[in-house]
Amino acid sequence: MPQGETVLLGPGDDAALVGAPDGRVVISTDLLLEGRHFRRDWSSGYHIGRKAAAQNLADIVAMGADPTGLVVGLGVPADLEATWIDALADGFRDECALVGATVAGGDTVRSDLIVLGVTALGDLGGRAPVVRSGARPGDVVAVAGRLGPSAAGLALLLAGGPGASGAVAGAGGPGVAVGAGGPGGAVGGPEETADPFAWLVDAHRCPRPPYACGPGAARLGATAMLDVSDGLLQDLGHVCAASGVSIDLDPDAFTPSAPLSAAAAHLGADPLEWILTGGEDHALAATFPPEVRLPPEWLVVGRVGEGREVTVRGRPPGRAGWDHFKE
Amino acid sequence: MPQGETVLLGPGDDAALVGAPDGRVVISTDLLLEGRHFRRDWSSGYHIGRKAAAQNLADIVAMGADPTGLVVGLGVPADLEATWIDALADGFRDECALVGATVAGGDTVRSDLIVLGVTALGDLGGRAPVVRSGARPGDVVAVAGRLGPSAAGLALLLAGGPGASGAVAGAGGPGVAVGAGGPGGAVGGPEETADPFAWLVDAHRCPRPPYACGPGAARLGATAMLDVSDGLLQDLGHVCAASGVSIDLDPDAFTPSAPLSAAAAHLGADPLEWILTGGEDHALAATFPPEVRLPPEWLVVGRVGEGREVTVRGRPPGRAGWDHFKE
Repeated sequence: MPQGETVLLGPGDDAALVGAPDGRVVISTDLLLEGRHFRRDWSSGYHIGRKAAAQNLADIVAMGADPTGLVVGLGVPADLEATWIDALADGFRDECALVGATVAGGDTVRSDLIVLGVTALGDLGGRAPVVRSGARPGDVVAVAGRLGPSAAGLALLLAGGPGASGAVAGAGGPGVAVGAGGPGGAVGGPEETADPFAWLVDAHRCPRPPYACGPGAARLGATAMLDVSDGLLQDLGHVCAASGVSIDLDPDAFTPSAPLSAAAAHLGADPLEWILTGGEDHALAATFPPEVRLPPEWLVVGRVGEGREVTVRGRPPGRAGWDHFKE
Repeated sequence: MPQGETVLLGPGDDAALVGAPDGRVVISTDLLLEGRHFRRDWSSGYHIGRKAAAQNLADIVAMGADPTGLVVGLGVPADLEATWIDALADGFRDECALVGATVAGGDTVRSDLIVLGVTALGDLGGRAPVVRSGARPGDVVAVAGRLGPSAAGLALLLAGGPGASGAVAGAGGPGVAVGAGGPGGAVGGPEETADPFAWLVDAHRCPRPPYACGPGAARLGATAMLDVSDGLLQDLGHVCAASGVSIDLDPDAFTPSAPLSAAAAHLGADPLEWILTGGEDHALAATFPPEVRLPPEWLVVGRVGEGREVTVRGRPPGRAGWDHFKE
């Protein structure tokens, strides 16, 4: 593994050494299990490495920190091909490279199923961490990154239809190389793409967190922030609980992108449900004082108030009938 | 989980925040799988937590660093009793407390078998990390902590005989509370103990790394150091490979403790084999310039020379016939 300037001592000793110039280190860990968090028949080793790295790096930037390094505990079956592990390592390397971080070390053990224990480190550069408990009534709620494509891609894979085949063995086709997309225009993908279903399936295999927006939000004065891993409504509920506030979302703020609309029409689904409840895109959701001028990466989608609940246009959200929230 | 002064922000947000006053952070990660690294019928949740923490904290002190915090990824079956998880958390807490560290965060997922992904952090306090590649011909080789008890305890468990029953459900009996033992006198346990077999089985369930000796060795000027996780001969082989040196051990330096001798007599085993090849005690092995005056926690067991191999009294070690190395 190539080492960046933040990794001072890489793999091969009892432990690695990573720079922490701030004098504090942000740390997040996730456990990912084959069959539960990923499927080898749906995602290549490369995609699984990228996604595993992405979800941890998203946790780091959601604190307002810059990622510095990653360590990986890897459990692999004895009969797993070496090329699969190489592709996994390439995925970790490429995703880390997006934020200037590297894999600093790890541990490999035998396991019946593939197990990944991923831990990411980050540096706050002297900033205060942006926690979940800082939202205040009157703040605006904004999102950066994609909302919905991963859930739509998963729905396509589960349906076994268009887009569900093909790129599993690939090491990142054109779909993966697409920019982060997301707010500023339509939510959840580009306005035009050659194959919207393949684009969505790639989005499920390989999320594209808006990494730079995390430290950027901290500099802008975000009062609370998290990455959307379980769905916007559920994750904003964590902000409400931690901050002792309510959040009301404006459903008209979300204009589904062309791929989302196409997949929804194909599957008879509601794109707003994917946008509001779909996880795994690792968008960022943050609250800002109302006077902050937000750059175009951030889309204002709601407002913080008194109370404890997340509502959509003043009404409690429900799983069925998202349409009635729209004007 | 109670938080120490090194953990600035504990569980509950996207990531934790741990102090890194040195401006660098030492990090080590391990993956532990039920059935492969521990057995629920042999060890209680409490013991498994202590051992999982201990093996990671040992990696941190083996770099010469002071542990600061731990994060834990935990996979648990849906039907696992909450009391087992509580005992596991208690084990992590108590082992961390030995070094003034705490559990800063984690991740819990469903899993068919118990999976632990443990990552430990440490601070060097301005010291250089003690890596494996610094040993020089003429240095002395010394060990601190226990060698052999874990292997002897495992042999007793495998034999199903004395000491193999009893304390599985306990949260740390008197045997666990025994001091670190080890060098200074006999290797691998106390000279007297009420039940030597139970003492050894406890030593297998709950290793006692000599934590303070790691940063202590760094201050004394250790040229290389690691924790003995795979057996002294094998781990010193890593020092030889990384440093480009040979190491010759003096078998007469190792006087088996009373429990080791008793278990060896009972099982028809050779205590020197447990001492030289037994892993999991997480003793520390280090090399020092010959002029360093070592405190009594360190036992000099060999010398660094030219070459690349580990030898015992000048001869290549073999699995059979350890007796012939002794005078």
